[in-house]
Amino acid sequence: MSTPLRLGIAGLGTVGTGVVKIVRRHKELLSARTGREIVISAISARTRDKDRGVSLSGYEWEDDPVALARRDDVDVFVELMGGSDGPAKAATEAAIEAGKDVVTANKAMLALHGQALAEAAEAKNLLIRFEAAVAGGIPVVKTLTEGLTGNEMTRVMGVMNGTCNYILTRMENAGLSYEEVFEEASQLGYLEADPTLDVGGIDAGHKLALLAAIAFGTRVSFDAMELEGIERITIADIRQAADMGYRIKLLGVAQKTGRGLEQRMSPCLVPTGSPLGQLENAANMAVLEGDAVGQIVLRGAGAGEGPTASAVMADILDIARGIRVPTFGRPAAQLEKPVAARSAMPAPYYLRMELEDKPGALAKVAAILGTAGLSINRMRQYGHTQTTAPVLIVTHKAQREAVDTALEALEKTDVVAGRPVALRIEDV
Amino acid sequence: MSTPLRLGIAGLGTVGTGVVKIVRRHKELLSARTGREIVISAISARTRDKDRGVSLSGYEWEDDPVALARRDDVDVFVELMGGSDGPAKAATEAAIEAGKDVVTANKAMLALHGQALAEAAEAKNLLIRFEAAVAGGIPVVKTLTEGLTGNEMTRVMGVMNGTCNYILTRMENAGLSYEEVFEEASQLGYLEADPTLDVGGIDAGHKLALLAAIAFGTRVSFDAMELEGIERITIADIRQAADMGYRIKLLGVAQKTGRGLEQRMSPCLVPTGSPLGQLENAANMAVLEGDAVGQIVLRGAGAGEGPTASAVMADILDIARGIRVPTFGRPAAQLEKPVAARSAMPAPYYLRMELEDKPGALAKVAAILGTAGLSINRMRQYGHTQTTAPVLIVTHKAQREAVDTALEALEKTDVVAGRPVALRIEDV
Repeated sequence: MSTPLRLGIAGLGTVGTGVVKIVRRHKELLSARTGREIVISAISARTRDKDRGVSLSGYEWEDDPVALARRDDVDVFVELMGGSDGPAKAATEAAIEAGKDVVTANKAMLALHGQALAEAAEAKNLLIRFEAAVAGGIPVVKTLTEGLTGNEMTRVMGVMNGTCNYILTRMENAGLSYEEVFEEASQLGYLEADPTLDVGGIDAGHKLALLAAIAFGTRVSFDAMELEGIERITIADIRQAADMGYRIKLLGVAQKTGRGLEQRMSPCLVPTGSPLGQLENAANMAVLEGDAVGQIVLRGAGAGEGPTASAVMADILDIARGIRVPTFGRPAAQLEKPVAARSAMPAPYYLRMELEDKPGALAKVAAILGTAGLSINRMRQYGHTQTTAPVLIVTHKAQREAVDTALEALEKTDVVAGRPVALRIEDV
Repeated sequence: MSTPLRLGIAGLGTVGTGVVKIVRRHKELLSARTGREIVISAISARTRDKDRGVSLSGYEWEDDPVALARRDDVDVFVELMGGSDGPAKAATEAAIEAGKDVVTANKAMLALHGQALAEAAEAKNLLIRFEAAVAGGIPVVKTLTEGLTGNEMTRVMGVMNGTCNYILTRMENAGLSYEEVFEEASQLGYLEADPTLDVGGIDAGHKLALLAAIAFGTRVSFDAMELEGIERITIADIRQAADMGYRIKLLGVAQKTGRGLEQRMSPCLVPTGSPLGQLENAANMAVLEGDAVGQIVLRGAGAGEGPTASAVMADILDIARGIRVPTFGRPAAQLEKPVAARSAMPAPYYLRMELEDKPGALAKVAAILGTAGLSINRMRQYGHTQTTAPVLIVTHKAQREAVDTALEALEKTDVVAGRPVALRIEDV
């Protein structure tokens, strides 16, 4: 057997604790699989005296994660603190500086600083691995960077924020409003401290940006992503969609088009019978499309102690085995700078608006859509309040630009109350 | 850039041709991903003069795959001929003898000779890789051996014969009999030369045996598998199952139990709403369960030129990158010899039998079930011919042994015509 692989673990929340538990529980199994002993040299966390359900007495303690990252008895720095900047980034940089490989679950840090960190690591022949940063326990990073390497990827999609999927599923199944379920989720502790990270699509967007980079060999470009959250989805939207054979999901789509790289994270309608349409509650799903393999669907738990720790361990054990694939599947310095293409692929759109109850209102709407170049596939008026009536329109395939033009014009008329909602119907 | 990786490809059927096409089409992409040029030095097939839709003029030709395997200008021998013995095995052995890594899509060869071949390869620090042998384009071997290495696997399941899934789906959707759809599939060229390999569950059984080995660290033991084909499934079974919320799938299940390793490939009832229950037509699915990750579901095309070639390429490119994981995830010499446990896990069973139309017939059946220790959850009599009536019984959870005892006794009575059908209801 070779020398042990020595870990320094920074961050002992759910995931960090899960990693410590696996290292302890599966000591022999991990050695049998890698031919090396996996040992924890030292740990670091914000609070030292806290019962985490596992004994930490055998490990050296560091108050400062940067000091942990630099220790001589650490081969791999395991960054599980989170946060795009601050201590996580400082300690990751220190680890690279000190010649350590890094395993992280930090999607925000990599979505914003992944290029610089990977270049710094690769200049010293070091690795940064991040399986746990995307879709929790699902080995989607490995599948893309190693399992589908013979393919030119054509599209990657994912439902990668369990909280949003929980909220949408729960609204549908319990017939509750967005606000009611949001409150429920908040009380159950499902939401991030800043809930916009979840419901605004930012967390899922970070993950999609990483997937897009490894799928298409481009630099991570989170800034160029079209982001839209689920805050404006109503129970009526969900029911109308269901009635037409669709479910609403916060769906990420990255695609190379003739115009450039398209990256969207937004609520979309997907067919109820598709794997994405069938995804319930907090489960995650990644759909990977390649020119040779066709469509591969991966489904599993996107969060939680066990699943996320499983992903962290896979990265650690790859390092133990000597598997050294660059962070983004090819050397960071060779990644292309993508041209951002805003929703280049046409699609049908679902539009919902509140129409003032006055004569000629519908005619005005129809005229605006026509002028923008949108043709109507189906239209439906349902329910009714004293002064407005909700109207639902499904367009034929259209460019997003045309939809935006129409939305702007609709807002300006005197017959539409508030901002219309436009949801893309994705061909999955 | 390092030295090129030089391939010798034996077998130019669908898969071999697909591999050649990818190597030609994605020359630059493959180099960008691996840092090495991937070149084909020589090829071999049964027929030389055949239009395969791709130019082969740049490659050396060998009539004898064994000679191909031994060539000095070959680093990796790519075995795509098929067949458990004969030329495939001889050439694989020659390749190892000559110090070449081997990539193969040959499930039969590995299910029967995998242990000996892997030991021979590993004794010389060589690899045998077989992603394409299991579930076509789905990277399930990589997922198990590398993506879930932090887990003790608890159960692996799979629908891994597209032809059987096509037949069962088609029977259901078109209301056709097994015989009618079998004939159709035969004319469409969906069946192996020996159709028992497909409909008898043998092909899928080979795949399950390989998955079980890598999931549980045991030697491949195809001989110990319980095998049952789909030949006796009727359209009535499919409809009755649907009526109770189930679909019938040729399902492989491997599980470590207190009694040993359980491996079954048999038609089972699975809930219609589960991912396995929703699998249509020729698609494949693997369901992997680990103690940390929970359940991971992988879905994709299980056969065809592109998907299978994609899997072969992933293995080749891993070798190009220097990824060297042992064939079965740990050294072959360290794999345990499993103790076979015949259907140790209890489950409810679906029983269907033809009851003679005589007084007291049902009472006799009930008595036999009771004596065997089977308790009845639901019972239904449906349809009717002149002399017999089909009777359907769903038991409470029972051991397979008790079911077999009951089936034997039922066959011996004078009230049951022919052999009853017993299908397990799997908790997926």
